[in-house]
Amino acid sequence: MIEQSGAPAAKRAVVLCSGGIDSTTVMAIARHERYTIYSLSFSYGQRHGVELRAARHVSAFFNAAEHLVLDIALDKIGGSALTDSIDVPKDGIGSSGSRGIPVTYVPARNTVFLSYALAWAEVCNASDIFIGVNAVDYSGYPDCRPQYIDAFETMANLATKAGVEGRRMRILAPLMHLTKAQIIQRGTALQVDYAMTHSCYDPDHDGAACGRCESCLLRKKGFDEAGVPDPTRYADP
Amino acid sequence: MIEQSGAPAAKRAVVLCSGGIDSTTVMAIARHERYTIYSLSFSYGQRHGVELRAARHVSAFFNAAEHLVLDIALDKIGGSALTDSIDVPKDGIGSSGSRGIPVTYVPARNTVFLSYALAWAEVCNASDIFIGVNAVDYSGYPDCRPQYIDAFETMANLATKAGVEGRRMRILAPLMHLTKAQIIQRGTALQVDYAMTHSCYDPDHDGAACGRCESCLLRKKGFDEAGVPDPTRYADP
Repeated sequence: MIEQSGAPAAKRAVVLCSGGIDSTTVMAIARHERYTIYSLSFSYGQRHGVELRAARHVSAFFNAAEHLVLDIALDKIGGSALTDSIDVPKDGIGSSGSRGIPVTYVPARNTVFLSYALAWAEVCNASDIFIGVNAVDYSGYPDCRPQYIDAFETMANLATKAGVEGRRMRILAPLMHLTKAQIIQRGTALQVDYAMTHSCYDPDHDGAACGRCESCLLRKKGFDEAGVPDPTRYADP
Repeated sequence: MIEQSGAPAAKRAVVLCSGGIDSTTVMAIARHERYTIYSLSFSYGQRHGVELRAARHVSAFFNAAEHLVLDIALDKIGGSALTDSIDVPKDGIGSSGSRGIPVTYVPARNTVFLSYALAWAEVCNASDIFIGVNAVDYSGYPDCRPQYIDAFETMANLATKAGVEGRRMRILAPLMHLTKAQIIQRGTALQVDYAMTHSCYDPDHDGAACGRCESCLLRKKGFDEAGVPDPTRYADP
């Protein structure tokens, strides 16, 4: 847990924080909009703890009032290359499973994440939940589409004491229609140091990025198209 | 994990199983409707393991193909008498917090439970999820209302690979409009032995029910009104 910053803020938000480019940019946007940030990360048998180290770094950087890391059991359910022993695909963007859905898709992941965010938002009196989903680069993931986010918001307002008492809960996805390059440009304008972020699905024991998985390729392409120097430490430069 | 029963069933369902009267009756209904049952229980800092022992007993009784117990971190979020150090109210039904919502309400609990059920349903190719929510005895809980269940179902079909691929996911709440007495009558007709179920919020170290918490009082009243002998072992008869 990180101490609350000095000035009290009027607005509170739960921000889902993976320590990657997208959620870090979202946190920069929330901070810029003067929210008090409750940063929420998950541990669920990811192949690497480097993601959580990045999440802690990012939460401290943006002066989160609290950083909660929940150990959830999503890996016990399986069904994805990210939580199972399925190989992470290399050297291709958009490596798909059946009918265009990538093998890195984790069943109902964003639904589980947002459900915890909703529970925490109720407890810490936050009405807004920020999530870094994006329909451009992740078009194969059903739970990254605007119609999904809208449906979750509708459900959230029926699910909670807050909703019933008239405090409208909102799910905010400010990156929904941006390309990776636009996301990096937006964050760079907000003075994000992307060196503290992590994207790689398959880092080495020292936390260096593989440079070849889908997530690394999207990241490299993003920096390239944004015209911003890529600060990533790659294992195989 | 319990071994799969002999005969393959055409339909598969994830059934949320707390080991209480409602979820046990729901499992009896699912079994009666010839579903292959994937029973899902949660451990989240409940005050007692007796609930999980009942859930294991019930899952075995109904010959579940699998019984998955997920250790989730809902207690780390807090905000409820069931997961925090708030006293469980005694000697009253409908003990309320602010504006009619009971202090035993756990923020977004059913949303978190259903999200995991959705993830597991995708992995084990089940289209139906059974949940024992009830709008009669739990009218103070926002996430026990039909409009909430409908909104979750809509969201679920947008969230998942299954939904995108046209396999409609359904959230089934067959007890929604039944009184506790009607639920007990329904289960008794399906030959449920309620001695294996557990309801008490505050059992003694030996697993005996307190007989005084809201959950015990609802249970007693249910058996009484159903005209069915109450098989519960009470600490203080």
